[in-house]
Amino acid sequence: MESTLLWGYHPVYEALRAGRRDIRAIHMVLEKIRPRGEELIRLARDTGISVQGKSAQQVTAMVGHKRHQGVCAEASTYPQSTLHEILDLAQAGGREPFVLVLDQVVDPQNLGAIARTAFCAGIHGILLPKHQSAPPSAAASKASAGALEHILVAYMTNLADALKRLKDAGVWLAGADQDGPDSVFDADLSGPLGIVVGGEEKGIRPLVKKQCDFLIHIPQTGPLGSLNASTAAAVVMYEAFRQRCLQS
Amino acid sequence: MESTLLWGYHPVYEALRAGRRDIRAIHMVLEKIRPRGEELIRLARDTGISVQGKSAQQVTAMVGHKRHQGVCAEASTYPQSTLHEILDLAQAGGREPFVLVLDQVVDPQNLGAIARTAFCAGIHGILLPKHQSAPPSAAASKASAGALEHILVAYMTNLADALKRLKDAGVWLAGADQDGPDSVFDADLSGPLGIVVGGEEKGIRPLVKKQCDFLIHIPQTGPLGSLNASTAAAVVMYEAFRQRCLQS
Repeated sequence: MESTLLWGYHPVYEALRAGRRDIRAIHMVLEKIRPRGEELIRLARDTGISVQGKSAQQVTAMVGHKRHQGVCAEASTYPQSTLHEILDLAQAGGREPFVLVLDQVVDPQNLGAIARTAFCAGIHGILLPKHQSAPPSAAASKASAGALEHILVAYMTNLADALKRLKDAGVWLAGADQDGPDSVFDADLSGPLGIVVGGEEKGIRPLVKKQCDFLIHIPQTGPLGSLNASTAAAVVMYEAFRQRCLQS
Repeated sequence: MESTLLWGYHPVYEALRAGRRDIRAIHMVLEKIRPRGEELIRLARDTGISVQGKSAQQVTAMVGHKRHQGVCAEASTYPQSTLHEILDLAQAGGREPFVLVLDQVVDPQNLGAIARTAFCAGIHGILLPKHQSAPPSAAASKASAGALEHILVAYMTNLADALKRLKDAGVWLAGADQDGPDSVFDADLSGPLGIVVGGEEKGIRPLVKKQCDFLIHIPQTGPLGSLNASTAAAVVMYEAFRQRCLQS
């Protein structure tokens, strides 16, 4: 099988819990194991996956750096989803679709941080363009504290087309744009919703922005430019989550 | 003077704009200057600070790494504030105090990210314990996109004592704690408020938690532990900001 080397406690542990990847083997530094490591071993054994003892140097040699926290896993590549599966997940839970669209977020750390928040806020899935997006790499999974192992992520060949399909499914698209006329706090974000967030430097591309039903800004004080992409996404997602909690 | 070497565009530019540090000289790679670099030079000249042309290698040698974006500044050390100055700032603006307390946030990246959000959300100042806190270093200023150059930050020898003084000044203390009884969305965060956020791994220390008037959790879905410290702080600060916008 084509494979990925996951590293770090949470990516490996959450990949085991999510059960979406085939895991061939886990390599672990056993000498200075913490209680959470024992939990990981138990979970691996329960699912019939072998855990092989290694030295820290051996794990470092395998993953190519020292940020592995004493564990890595040979796993199948990231299980990408489709837009259809994301909408199905919403329907299966009896909820209005709640989707996040990331237009050209290129930093795997940002993708990971945003995916972690998205998963906590109940987002059904993340849509990204296939080109000019951070891949769902082991580093992104680490930055997400393993949330990427659970949340549905779909890379679209044609993002504008995917957004049209979302709108055909009754989903309203809210673009986060500091020049947008409405405050995020005044917008109605309680229905079927796609939140569109732009990349680190450039914001949402014009063609993608044109697909948005409304553009919202995040109020802020002071002379600074703006929140970073990850924080802006968190504020908008959690304001939508707040409104959705009030509804249900 | 005791000095700090600031590096990166935003820290240097915002330090110039804020005018809180003495800046002895700015060193800059002039060959591949972007428009924003010209703005920085103009601002430096307006305030009588010399800008010295350097090669990228020279700037790298000065700061000790390559993440300097072609600019560094010899500046006085970070201008720390007092609790008194933070409360004065709120009063001078005719606003209820809106303070952030970081209990043992040790990662300069987190301090920077949180300071950036705090400044955008209108926080009057950040309180931290003198021990076990990230320092307001050049790296933290970079991570804050220069927001640290503007926002008031006070390192307290005795944090619990400082919290008592805050309460004596009529400020309510809301601790962010995933085991807290109230949802952040149900709590009244519109009055004089201090938001207490714990460190990356351990949350708020018991002695600090005891000073909180109420403990609030951030609602979340799914099986993951929690949001990271920086995102949790952003969600609570922006919910308070939302409520404060409604009030005014």
